[in-house]
Order: sequence, then structure tokens, then C-alpha cells
Amino acid sequence: MLTLGNGYLATRGAAPEASADGVHYPGTYLAGFHNRLPGGAGRPDGEESIVNLPNWLPLTFRPAGGDWYAPGRARRVHEHRMLDLRRGVQLRELVVVDPDRRRTRLRQRRLVSMANPHFAALETSIVAENWSGRLELRSGIDGGVSNAETAARVGAGGRHLADVTGGANDDAIWLTAVAAGSRQPVAVTARTTVGVVDAAAPATRTVVRDAAAVAEMYAIDVLAGTPITIDKTVAVFCGRDRAVHDPLTAAAEALRWAGTFAVLLADHVAAWDRLWSRFRLDVGEEHVWQLPLRVQTFHLLQTLSPHTVDLDAGVPARGLHGEGYHGHVFWDELFVYPYLNLRLPELTRALLEYRYRRLPAARRQAAAAGMAGALFPWQSATSGRDESPVRSPSPVTGEWQDDRTGRQHHVNLAVSYSVWRYWETTGDLSFLLDHGAELLIATARFWAGLATYDPSDDRYDIRGVLGPDEYHDGYPGRAGQGLDNCAYINVMVAWVLARADEACVLQDRHPGAAPWRAAAVPAGERRRWTHIARRLRLVFLPNGLLAQFAGYGDLVELDWDRYRRRYGDLRLLGPLLQAEGDDPNRYKISKQADVLMLLYLFSAEELTALIRGMGYHFDPARIPATVDHYLSRTTHGSTLSRIAHAWVLARTDRRRSFHMLLDALGTDLADPAHSSTREGIHLGATAGTLDILQRCYTGLEVRGDVLRLNPVLPEGMDQLDCVLRYRNRLLVLHVDCDQVRISAGPGADPPVPVAVQEQVHLLAAGAIVTVPLRRRDPGADRA
Amino acid sequence: MLTLGNGYLATRGAAPEASADGVHYPGTYLAGFHNRLPGGAGRPDGEESIVNLPNWLPLTFRPAGGDWYAPGRARRVHEHRMLDLRRGVQLRELVVVDPDRRRTRLRQRRLVSMANPHFAALETSIVAENWSGRLELRSGIDGGVSNAETAARVGAGGRHLADVTGGANDDAIWLTAVAAGSRQPVAVTARTTVGVVDAAAPATRTVVRDAAAVAEMYAIDVLAGTPITIDKTVAVFCGRDRAVHDPLTAAAEALRWAGTFAVLLADHVAAWDRLWSRFRLDVGEEHVWQLPLRVQTFHLLQTLSPHTVDLDAGVPARGLHGEGYHGHVFWDELFVYPYLNLRLPELTRALLEYRYRRLPAARRQAAAAGMAGALFPWQSATSGRDESPVRSPSPVTGEWQDDRTGRQHHVNLAVSYSVWRYWETTGDLSFLLDHGAELLIATARFWAGLATYDPSDDRYDIRGVLGPDEYHDGYPGRAGQGLDNCAYINVMVAWVLARADEACVLQDRHPGAAPWRAAAVPAGERRRWTHIARRLRLVFLPNGLLAQFAGYGDLVELDWDRYRRRYGDLRLLGPLLQAEGDDPNRYKISKQADVLMLLYLFSAEELTALIRGMGYHFDPARIPATVDHYLSRTTHGSTLSRIAHAWVLARTDRRRSFHMLLDALGTDLADPAHSSTREGIHLGATAGTLDILQRCYTGLEVRGDVLRLNPVLPEGMDQLDCVLRYRNRLLVLHVDCDQVRISAGPGADPPVPVAVQEQVHLLAAGAIVTVPLRRRDPGADRA
Repeated sequence: MLTLGNGYLATRGAAPEASADGVHYPGTYLAGFHNRLPGGAGRPDGEESIVNLPNWLPLTFRPAGGDWYAPGRARRVHEHRMLDLRRGVQLRELVVVDPDRRRTRLRQRRLVSMANPHFAALETSIVAENWSGRLELRSGIDGGVSNAETAARVGAGGRHLADVTGGANDDAIWLTAVAAGSRQPVAVTARTTVGVVDAAAPATRTVVRDAAAVAEMYAIDVLAGTPITIDKTVAVFCGRDRAVHDPLTAAAEALRWAGTFAVLLADHVAAWDRLWSRFRLDVGEEHVWQLPLRVQTFHLLQTLSPHTVDLDAGVPARGLHGEGYHGHVFWDELFVYPYLNLRLPELTRALLEYRYRRLPAARRQAAAAGMAGALFPWQSATSGRDESPVRSPSPVTGEWQDDRTGRQHHVNLAVSYSVWRYWETTGDLSFLLDHGAELLIATARFWAGLATYDPSDDRYDIRGVLGPDEYHDGYPGRAGQGLDNCAYINVMVAWVLARADEACVLQDRHPGAAPWRAAAVPAGERRRWTHIARRLRLVFLPNGLLAQFAGYGDLVELDWDRYRRRYGDLRLLGPLLQAEGDDPNRYKISKQADVLMLLYLFSAEELTALIRGMGYHFDPARIPATVDHYLSRTTHGSTLSRIAHAWVLARTDRRRSFHMLLDALGTDLADPAHSSTREGIHLGATAGTLDILQRCYTGLEVRGDVLRLNPVLPEGMDQLDCVLRYRNRLLVLHVDCDQVRISAGPGADPPVPVAVQEQVHLLAAGAIVTVPLRRRDPGADRA
Repeated sequence: MLTLGNGYLATRGAAPEASADGVHYPGTYLAGFHNRLPGGAGRPDGEESIVNLPNWLPLTFRPAGGDWYAPGRARRVHEHRMLDLRRGVQLRELVVVDPDRRRTRLRQRRLVSMANPHFAALETSIVAENWSGRLELRSGIDGGVSNAETAARVGAGGRHLADVTGGANDDAIWLTAVAAGSRQPVAVTARTTVGVVDAAAPATRTVVRDAAAVAEMYAIDVLAGTPITIDKTVAVFCGRDRAVHDPLTAAAEALRWAGTFAVLLADHVAAWDRLWSRFRLDVGEEHVWQLPLRVQTFHLLQTLSPHTVDLDAGVPARGLHGEGYHGHVFWDELFVYPYLNLRLPELTRALLEYRYRRLPAARRQAAAAGMAGALFPWQSATSGRDESPVRSPSPVTGEWQDDRTGRQHHVNLAVSYSVWRYWETTGDLSFLLDHGAELLIATARFWAGLATYDPSDDRYDIRGVLGPDEYHDGYPGRAGQGLDNCAYINVMVAWVLARADEACVLQDRHPGAAPWRAAAVPAGERRRWTHIARRLRLVFLPNGLLAQFAGYGDLVELDWDRYRRRYGDLRLLGPLLQAEGDDPNRYKISKQADVLMLLYLFSAEELTALIRGMGYHFDPARIPATVDHYLSRTTHGSTLSRIAHAWVLARTDRRRSFHMLLDALGTDLADPAHSSTREGIHLGATAGTLDILQRCYTGLEVRGDVLRLNPVLPEGMDQLDCVLRYRNRLLVLHVDCDQVRISAGPGADPPVPVAVQEQVHLLAAGAIVTVPLRRRDPGADRA
């Protein structure tokens, strides 16, 4: 719940966080500590993408003779937490009164450095408000952390650190461990300095250890009202870090060179300043969206920062913020890259290379299923192998039941889509030819292998598959056996087959840029791709709308009013039906966007051309009706759904689009206590909301090496200012209801073509192009 | 010693190799297994860049009741080893007779896959020639390997694998270990299949283990004259590998999917075919250089292959072929990149990023010495920290003495030079701005900080430093205290300061391409760089030649004839003088190219402009005299020296250049038994020799985005054919005494400007440009 704040300040609950007092800490929040430690076992023999690091935060105190402060052990008369987004600093103020009525005030500032991802720091100021005497402090590193957030629900979790060893030297403590699964070593070092103002005696220090933790204790005489300041500086390294021999030596060396809290803070703030200037997305300081937009940007950059580029990191569904899905990677990247492509395209490239490195695993997965090409699993972790659960508990009854979501084979389509959009946006030919082409070709081979030819009408069918909508995994009575000719799948496959062929053409045209081991795809295979792409079957409803899959039209309409009356919130409609002994497969309902995903991924023009290219009549004027049909039957059981829906509504219902986006912005803010945000943010939705402002409301697309803008602001939004990085240029874009203004930074770059409402302008370095917008037809909303 | 072979086949001794029969194996030969296992301790608390992997080769046999075959335990009546360069396969034939006169013939083919760097395979065929009966085989993995090659000499080495554990399942054996220093886990799995032709009974299998090894044993009935074939397929993974959760799971999974030897061989040969087609460098199949050139290419690609690109790997001085220098990284890359820039520029970029990742360590090294900027150590390993020895044994007396080579601070100049040449050759602006500029700026800051201003003549001095020539580390009587105004250092510094400034200009001109955290260099600092670059002091000898350093002219001439008579080979002149109680610092002698390095790194035109830019008169006509002066006083104590010298002689003495290059080609071939090649190849010399053909004899340089050729073939070489990868184009270059022919592959790339003898031609895709060469003035050789 957002209780207060300006555009850069969020308080209480803006982030899921356990109490930060030495009891438990979810490891990676205020991140930078990314993917360092693969290896815990989410389920027996399973892998996780991320596991907790040793907890570096423990810092507590007691008046001599009293109890160590811990939640529940003293009376908190005041507590306030605040997240300073601009500086990336978490602030906390706490006043406690112990049973002897000693009142102590504690102020903390905490950072995980954006300047150097190996550093974290905690500054603590303590004031004995109404007492004087001996104060004891304990500052430690705890290797006894465990993944406890989701353990109760999914029966997994537990301790992931083994072989914990700790020690101390004259001015620092250290702790090493190995990840239980991967055997990766990790080391944390910490230096705590106690600065005493006006005190008679210096602090004395002792070191204490137990099986899984190490700490140093200070005893110090304090005077009522006189603050003492404690700086804790921390370095963390693991065996995956590059340019590191062994983590402990690296962490000790880094700590030796680390500056004071003030120095670390200054470097950290400077790094965030530079990031904010590149990730600017402003709708006006007073606008209700401004703070949520910054919170989303902050969360995104906590998970995927410039420091991620040199890591072998993927896009975990829940960011680095919690333990949901064990850090697994799904298809969320599809919603993340479009935003990054225009901000930090190096990051998209690096994240796609994460997929490329797991292509061998994806090929094995396809081969194990008797298929050609490559099949990226629905859920994967470090090694890229399939980590999809086969059973999971119902969110309604808690009973364990078969989980068939792992049969979704469309992740390779999402990866291929991302490859092509990255190339289209950046013009990065070397990536496309080095790695992108191989991903496209492997995907094309998988789906071409799955398509069966029906000579009766010269059509190809793709049978027995699942689209994104998880409420449909088979026909009524045949749950789990898949569906035939899903519109989402078949349109995407047709598009990917054409792109794979186009990549082959580019390899032929640039033989010197192709990688040393590129093997040409046989001409006959490429001809088959082209034929399939033109003749894949789509199914339409009697009213001419695209059917979600063959047979969708025969399904039963749900009595929505009845179920709304019965349950209120229908986000869990599927499990609710199952709990009643019913089967969601019977109904014309969707958990999430499926057909509508096509309108999210393709412009109306593109989609029209694509479907017509498949030999079907398609009238773009029927798009609003298609949106209406599916949207009115969707429960938004997935956070990603709202992104796709806010997107498709932008051109048909500007008011609903605004509210849909407002909902999406609230995903991880509105009610974290009762949402699954406690298991981590929803990274796809986080980036997707930003992208709606960046690309959808501006009508931004890159086609034919032209940056095209065609803005339609939603109701309730008057202006938008953002910074784009496009083809190595920094562009500043301003959109309001009357005009578009786009300016290029100074320099020597050649002019870049920019089209506003289809009119092309050449934008030279240092120049500004201002274009008045043609008024939209006011009746266009429901056209 | 090369005893036989065609252009792709080398036999006996072409590679340093211990006997491959389960006793000892130097780990990484027939490589691909690169930088996987950092972490052994070369010296107490020291780091190595590479350490041995578990030995996967052990495969031995015995007639039942006899002894296991091992060198020394049976009479070898025939042994022959051969390296098939084209296919990357090592062949071995062995006939042994045991004390019972049983004669057994063994043929082996061995590969480490170039198609998949995690695979290795060994195919063995055994024929009982004059006996029938029970044959036993033992095939294992040995974790008890140690670094023994250099142990005796340098007192280091030893076992680097700890926590060795082995086991077996139904069809494979496995072994895991951790590197003792870095705690990195490693795993090897092996599957041995025994194919029996015409045998009555199938083989029986048992598994045996000891503390550091695991093996499987087969017993089989053989008939005289009937061969049996044993395939051993191996997978290796370590914790540094990307897309790997834990190495053992990865190695087991990879092995499960690995094909037969025939399949692995086919993939491997296809990969080598593609590599050879990209690394072609032909002087004619009958030419005495052809085989050595292919051997050098092979060794280079064993160490630095396309698979290296995704690793965090540097350029170890001795390749992956031995334990010399503990795998440390020096400055050899300076000689390697120019060749790679025109073949596999992605590899240069990746290797320079290795340096970039160690920039923090280099900054700390500079700071620890009270300097600004960054100081790359003379010897470094995994983490980039200084691993230069402070004492080492004299190669003459074996006595330990101070080793001051670590005071060479010029590695950052070499790295900066490589950054700029890479950018100039490839036009890769993003690398220059992302990482290159930071390397250049940090180097500029180091040297600008070291330069002191002398207002008396408006000159800057750089005092107390060492150039590449290790025979001079101080003035007579002040050994180890450094020299003033080394020509190599000061010219390089002037050049680097100008390039750092130019990089800043490029950052200003392309603000959108500059990385998010680029911080502008203050204008005042850049002005100071420019001033220093123009006013650094050079010292000249009375005859006008450039002095190696200030005071060089005052040194004593050595009585070369006397020392030649006394010692014959003077390659160890420095240590010989020290053993006599003399000091090499007293004499006008050089261990290796120093001033002449400038002529290797810069064309005569560039160097002339550079020195004139520093405010000195410089007549390029005096270059031959400079070459004569220093060459006649150089002992070639470094293998790199011959590269620089063959280069500078190419334009002044074509005959000597030919012989110098022939010497260089022989470095790791001519006499491995008595050379230091047993401790590894000399990678700088290996690539440097290839580069002399590629760039020097062709007169190839890239300047102003034009590929320039100005060929002067040495005597004894009539033609040269090579493939270049230039600006993402594959070009085929033919040079002979009469003409240059350059052709571009087909495709859609725009024409590229190519200049032959300063005449610019536009080379279109699919086109051929043939240019007759103007005859050189026959008297030019000694001009």
C-alpha cells in the first residue's frame, strides 16, 4: 500500500520485505546481487535460477543487561520505512522502549551499490533518548538463511547454503558457504565501524560465531541524546563472478579498498542519477501514475541493470524480489525486451544470449519428445532444462493436483519474436547472424516438424498444443491432451517461419558476417517453411471472429453473473470451477490474453497482412469486436494479461485502457499484503506497464529502419516525456495532445529518419523536430 | 623435431606430450578445455590462469595374467605418433611384446572436439597379433594429476585437485573434484564401449576405484589377428561454464546425448574444416614454411578458438600446452590480436574484455603504488592481481635471485595499443566507447601521472621505469632502480595519450553510444595529456639514432666475439654475465627488441609523424641504421624478439627477414626436447609469425577506413594466399611478385575501399580486383 511519497519516494510496503533486524532477509532485494548463486534445489533434484545469499544485514543492539532488540521482544513505539527511489536507498526509523522504559531511537540507511554490484552498505544511527550507559551492538553475517517464503505453500524451499564457515580478522568478519546444489562457492565480508561522538571511551570489540553465522560485538558507553553512528560495509562474491579467483580473497580485497558509507553512497547515487536520466518516463510530477511508474522502473532496474549484461542471466518471472517460482524463467521476457530495446539494448542482447547458451538443452528437450529443432521449457532455471512442476497445489483448495502448464511449448515462439524485434529495433546484424538466426531456425524446425499436412484443403494443422490461456489444456472430457490450431500458436508460427527464412536470406547476403560455423538450411526445407507459413490453418467463429482454437465455438458460455455473485473476485475462476468438480475446458472463458496477445505483439496492419498472407480474409475493422469478445470472457488470472489488454484497448477504448493500466501499475503496489507480491514482483507486468507508455500510447514502432510515432494518449493523461536510446542515439521524446517533439543529442551521428503519423522527418544530431498532431476522429474510439 | 608430414600432418614431437597411457597427461593439449579451472596455486597464495583437469585419457590393457601395459614395463617394438592438423586428430600406433613374447598392436585416434568443447574422445583398436586368449582393458579418469613439468625448476606445482570423488553407473564412470585454490567444482564423465568383431563372448565389466581415480575394467576373449575396437567418450564441465547448474549433472547429461566416436569425429572434422577455410594462409604446398605455418595456426586455435569468445579468458604466454609461467598472462596478446583482428575479430574483443574486467584490479595496483589510472601487472592470472615473481632461479646457475621483471609497467600500453588497433581495423565503435575508452583513459592517467615536468626546456620526463628489454633494469651500479626516458615507453605514451584524447572526442561525438556510466574527462586533464604527448623527452645517440633510454650512449660495448667464443649460444647472455658477477646493465646489449618494437608497432610513416609530433627531428631514412645498431646488439633471448625483428627487416633486408622468420617458425618445432616448449608453446611468437605473413609481407594496414596493401615478399617466398575477415566481409587475398588479387565473397555488402600501393579501388561483393605491382627499386633493400 502506497501511503505517502512524491515521484521518487515510496513508503511502507513498496517492496516485499521481512523485518531487517537480523532475523530474516529475502536476500536479493535492493539488488545487484543477481544470479550469483545458482544451485539450491527448489524441488528434489530441481534447480533454481537464484537462491538466497548469506544475510549481510544483521545489526542489532541492547542496553547492557537487556535483551537484544528483535521484533516482538521490545515495544516499537514508532517505525517508519521509506524507499528513496531516486537514490536507491532504503530508510528506516525505529523507536523502541524496553521493559526498563529505556527509549532508543534507530535510524538506518541501506544500499546495495549500483556503482559496484559487489558492495552493500548499512548506516545506522542510534540515540539513547532517555538513558545513558553501556550499549552493546552486534553486527554479523548469517549463513543460516533459508527459502521460507513459499515453502509452506509449495512444499519446497529450505536451506540452500552448505559448508558455512565464518571468521574474523582485525577489522572485518567473513563468511563462506557453497550452494548446496551447484556447489558454487560464495563469500561475504563485512566491516563495521563505530563512530562515537563525544564519548569518553572507544568501543571494545569481540567476535562471536555459531554454526551458520559470524558476528562482531561492540560495547560502548553512550550518553542520553548523543547519537552514535555505525557503518557496516559489505562485499559479496561468488564463484560465477568473472575476474575472480576465489570468492573469499576477492571479497576481502574488495572490502579493503571499499570507501566509507558516504563514499559508497555518493558513487551509488551518481550511478542511479545516470540510470534515471536514461530511464526517464514522465507523465507529470502530480500525475497519479508518476510514482508507480518510478517504482516499476526501480524494480526493473533492481533485477536487470547494466551490470547484468556481463552475467549469464535470464529474466526470472518474479524479479530478484522473492522466492516465487524458485526464480524460474518463463516467457516474461516477451514483455520486458520491448522496453529495454529502446533503453539499454545491450541488456536485451545479453538476455537473449542466455537463451542462446541454453539452445543445446532446448534441442535435447525437443529430441527427447521426438521433435526436431528446439523446445524451451515452460519453466527453466540455471541449466535450461525443464523445471516445470508436474503437480502443484490448487490456489483454492490447497490440494495437490496435476499441473499441465509445462506442456506450453510456445516459449520458443516468444524468444524468436524477441530476437526479431531486437534486430528490427537496433539493426544489430551481428547478433542476428551470430545467435539470432540459430534461435529462429531451431524454432522454425520445431514447429514445422509439428505441422501435419492435410491434402484435402492444402492446409497444415498443429494439433495437441497449448496456448498461453491456461484455462484450456484440452477439449471437454480430454483435459491435458491439448488443443488444435490455436490462433496464437499458428499465427506466431507462420510469422516465425517467415522470419527464419528471412534470417537465412540475410546470412546468404552477408556471408562474411555469418558465424564461422553457420550451416546453410537446405533450400527444400526453406520452401517447406514458406509453404507452411502460407497454409497454416486458422479457425473462425460463425460471426467471423478469430477462434482461440478449433472447437472454441462449441464451448459453453459461462453464467458470469452467477459466478460473480457466488465468488466476487473471479481471478481464480479456473481453480474455483475445478474445486466444484467442473472443468474450465468446457467454457468460453480465458485466464489470460490468448488471441488478444496477437494484437499486443503485432500492429493491426501487421496482423492483417499476416493473416491475409495465410490465405484468410481478415478485416481489421473487426478488431474491436474481437477485443470485446475475448476481454468480456477473461478473468485476468495472469498479471501479464492486463498488459496485453491495456495495449489492445489503447486504440479502441482510451478510458478503459487508462483504467486497465492503472490496475496493472498496482499489481505489486496496491495490496501486497494479500497479493502474491510477497513472493516477488511480477517482472513481465512491471516492464510491460512502462512499455505501454513508451510504445503503445506513442504508437512507436521501428519498421524499415524508420522510427515511427503515431500517438494516442489515453484519457487522463495529457503528456509524456521520455528518453529513448535508438540506434546509438539518445532521443528525448515529448508527446501531448497537440504535438510530438523529438530531439536528438548533439554529436556527429548522421540524421535518423523519424516518422510522425506516417510523415517522415530527418532528425539531425542536436536538432529538434516538432510536429503538430492531426486530431483523431472523436468517434474513432468505438469504430 | 619434424620428421615427416605434408602440409597438414606433423609427427613426433610436434607437440609437447607425455606418454598417453594413463601415467601422466598435461591436461589441456588438444584443447578446447580452456580456462575452465582457475585456482591452483602456482606459488604459495598465488593464482594460475589454468590448471590441469582430471586426466581423461587412461586406457591400458594386459593379456590376462600379464602386467598392465605401461611405458618401461613392456618392450615397444614400434611406436609412431602423428598429429593430423587438418582434422585435429592425434594418431598413435604402438606394438608391444611382453615377456611371454605376446605381441600386441594398438592404434589410437584421439580428439578434443572443436564442435562441442565439452567433448573428447579416444578410439582404440587392439590386435593380439600372435596370441589368443583373455585380454583385459582398463579405462579410467584420473584426478591424481599434478603440475609436474616445471616443479623441479621453479619449486612450484603439485596437485591442484582436491576432494576427488569417483563412481560409476551402468554405462559410464564419473569423477568430480574441486580446484584447490578457487574451490571451483569440475566433473568428468566417460563411457567406454568395447566392440568385438567375431568374438564368442561379450566383454565383462567391473569398476575399480582408488583415492583419486576411477576406472572400469573389461575382460574379453580375443583371437589372434582379430581386432577389437574400444571407444571412450568423455564429457567435462566445470563451475565456470555458463548454462550449467552443477558440473556433474551437466557432464552426465552431455554424455547421455553424445554420439559414437564416428559421430563426434565427423562433427569435429566439419568444425575444423570451417576453421581452416577461415584461417587459410598458404605459401604453396611444397614450401618449407607451409607445414610450420599450419602447425602454428593449429596451436593458436587450440588455445584461442571461437569457443573462447564466451569465456572470461586471457592470452596465456604458453598457450594451453604446458605449465610454463603457471598459465600466467603477460603482454603476448600484443602479438596475437593483429592476426585475429583480420580473422576472428570477435575473439580479440572478447580477450580485450578480459582486460576490461580486470581494470578494477589494475586500478588498485596503480593506487597501491601511489599512482593514478591503471597498471596491469607484468604477470597476472585469474583475478588480474599481480602474480609476478619477486625471486626466480637463474637459468644458468639455478640459484635463486631477485626477479625485477615485474617492474615492467608497459602492459597497459600494450593493451591500449591493442584496443586502438582493434577499433581501427574493425570499426567497432560500441566496443571502443563501452570498454576501450575506459582502458585508454586509465592508461593515459597512469602515465600522465608519472610524467614530471622540466620547465628548463618545457619537456616531460618519465623516470625510473623498465622497457621490454629485460637486460636493462637500471643504470650500472643501480640495478633494479629503473631507467629514464625509455624510447619505447615515451613514444608509446605519447601515442596513447593522443588516442585517449581521441576516444574522448568520439564519446563526445556519439553521446548515445557511450555507456550509461561514462564520465567525461575534464578538459584541463585532456589539455595536459596533449601537452605531455607533444613534449615527452626522447634521447638520441651522437650519431642521431634513437637511444633506448637516457644514458644508453654511455654504456660499454660488449666484446661479442669473446663471449661467443666463450659460450657459443648467447641467448642467455644476461644470466651468463650475472653468473660471472658482471651486470648486463653495463653494456649496450639487448635481450629483446625494445626501440625496434616501435618499428614493429608503427609503420615508418606513423613513427616519423609521431616523433616529429613530439618536437624532434626524425629522418625515416635512418631507420635501417637504427635496425642495424640494435639488431647487432641483441641476443634474442625472447621468442617475441624474432617476430619484431623479422618484421623490421622485411623492408630493409628481405633475405635476413626470411631467415629470421624461419627461426621464429621453428621456435616450438625445431628442437622441443631441448627448448622450453616442453613447458608450453610460445603463443605470442606463434601468432606473430602468422601475422608477419598476413600483414608485414603484404604491407597490410587499415587507415582511414581503407584496407591498404603494399606487398614486399621476402626472398624465398613467391606467393601468398590468405582469407581475411574484414568489416564483416570475407576477402580472399593473393599476392605474388607481380600482382595483388583480392576478391570479395558474394552477397549484398556495399563495396569496400582497398588500396594497393596507395591506389584506392572499390571492391564490390562478388568482385575481384587485380592490380599489377610496381617493381621495387632493387637497391631499396639497404637504402
